[in-house]
Amino acid sequence: MKFTERFIADKELVETALRGVFRGKVPHADIYDAMNYSLLAGGKRVRPILTIEACRLCGGTAEAALPFACAVEMVHTYSLIHDDLPCMDNDELRRGKPTNHVRYGEATAVLAGDGLLTAAFETALGAGACLPAERVIQALELLSVAAGPAGMVGGQVLDMVGEGHALTLSDVEELQQLKTGALISAAAELGVIAAGGDETKRTAVRTYAQKLGLAFQIRDDVLDVTGDEGSLGKPIGSDAESEKTTFVTLKGLEECGRMVERLTADAVAALSAFEESWFLEELARVLVGRTN
Amino acid sequence: MKFTERFIADKELVETALRGVFRGKVPHADIYDAMNYSLLAGGKRVRPILTIEACRLCGGTAEAALPFACAVEMVHTYSLIHDDLPCMDNDELRRGKPTNHVRYGEATAVLAGDGLLTAAFETALGAGACLPAERVIQALELLSVAAGPAGMVGGQVLDMVGEGHALTLSDVEELQQLKTGALISAAAELGVIAAGGDETKRTAVRTYAQKLGLAFQIRDDVLDVTGDEGSLGKPIGSDAESEKTTFVTLKGLEECGRMVERLTADAVAALSAFEESWFLEELARVLVGRTN
Repeated sequence: MKFTERFIADKELVETALRGVFRGKVPHADIYDAMNYSLLAGGKRVRPILTIEACRLCGGTAEAALPFACAVEMVHTYSLIHDDLPCMDNDELRRGKPTNHVRYGEATAVLAGDGLLTAAFETALGAGACLPAERVIQALELLSVAAGPAGMVGGQVLDMVGEGHALTLSDVEELQQLKTGALISAAAELGVIAAGGDETKRTAVRTYAQKLGLAFQIRDDVLDVTGDEGSLGKPIGSDAESEKTTFVTLKGLEECGRMVERLTADAVAALSAFEESWFLEELARVLVGRTN
Repeated sequence: MKFTERFIADKELVETALRGVFRGKVPHADIYDAMNYSLLAGGKRVRPILTIEACRLCGGTAEAALPFACAVEMVHTYSLIHDDLPCMDNDELRRGKPTNHVRYGEATAVLAGDGLLTAAFETALGAGACLPAERVIQALELLSVAAGPAGMVGGQVLDMVGEGHALTLSDVEELQQLKTGALISAAAELGVIAAGGDETKRTAVRTYAQKLGLAFQIRDDVLDVTGDEGSLGKPIGSDAESEKTTFVTLKGLEECGRMVERLTADAVAALSAFEESWFLEELARVLVGRTN
């Protein structure tokens, strides 16, 4: 139970920090409610845990990584709010709850996303209290590129444009790398930066996170076909309904299973030079077996 | 013509820098087109010119201020794209051209706004090439607070919530201070930070920008009643149509004229300790007389 205990402890660190982000703010109408509604909706917190654990892996503390960890989760949350909008994926359910625009209306949901994205940078800048300024700048550069038009936003555009079109495996891989892979890699790399790890460590952790991110996405496509709506907290079959090309439509369920196993092994192998890598190795294995 | 020449020269500096922001980027579908469509639509560039000129006022160069100047204009542009969306103000015309969502569709417009906001932080971080890291962090903190839920995003929420309700003068002032004032103040203060100006200079420039911002907004409300659609590049009478409480509905056109004059005088007075403040003083006077 060592892994589970540490995962829960990390998650609680993240939850506590996220609950504090907007605490004590003077409310302007219900914008803070709307932001917290999605931010504190109980996601898996995989990204911020990657940040914390990559920082520990390189000899840093969880505390040093927390501002970046929170910022990454805020960016992830904003992207979900905007992705769910009627003009985008038009989803009404997320993590078992009505999506932000269903609960607060479309205009507030757009602004809640905008507010979370902006506040993510403010939160990341808070790392300046305990890290050298140069390192904070390096971190924000990484985060802004990963989240922006050359990363996550670009991936969302490709996803939208691709709907209803036949895509090749390399199209789907590029789309995934931008839409979800870039932020997952950034999450892990931000931990290395917080710890002051060198370029060799950054490359190893980036490789781990890239393999993990791809495995995670393939597993996500599989769950959209084989998953259970109750434990997923969102409708299944949405990819097929929107005629999306996924790893499953391209490769089939069986080959997808093999790809996930191979990628997980590659992710674990990327950390071979580290001594205390057991948690991140186990995390990769556990994420493959997840049912939600 | 000294003022006009310098204004045009400053504006050209900004336009050239903005044209360079996304140059040479690998296109993901048309996201860069959509971002550039609004970013390069020929606004007045008041905010970035404030940044450049506040920097010069405090002994810095235009070049040192440019990354912050561009970032502010990118934040301003993203806010216009999102404000124009059907679920927000539902405007179809901006600066004489179809709004972003009319031209590219709603989903791309949401993402173009998201992309511009994210890239604004990336662009501001570029100042690290010629400024000390601590100063860059200070600047980004200011920008993220001014643009976020405690600033511009919060103001937009208040604006939305206020529609169709009777507001007091102090409600409208708070709304304006958040929605447009916060970013205008930040624009000018970022120039002081770029120049390494002290707290006294920052306070003086902030006061100037706050007075100017308020005068600018009152003048905007006046133009929505008395302006000419052709030179404004957008429909007039939109405030009345959406039953907005404005400075004009609260105070009348005549008193608004007096308020603008008083605020302009206060703005000019705030710069009295500076030697080379003629351009910013003239800028305040010119903005009051503007017809678009």
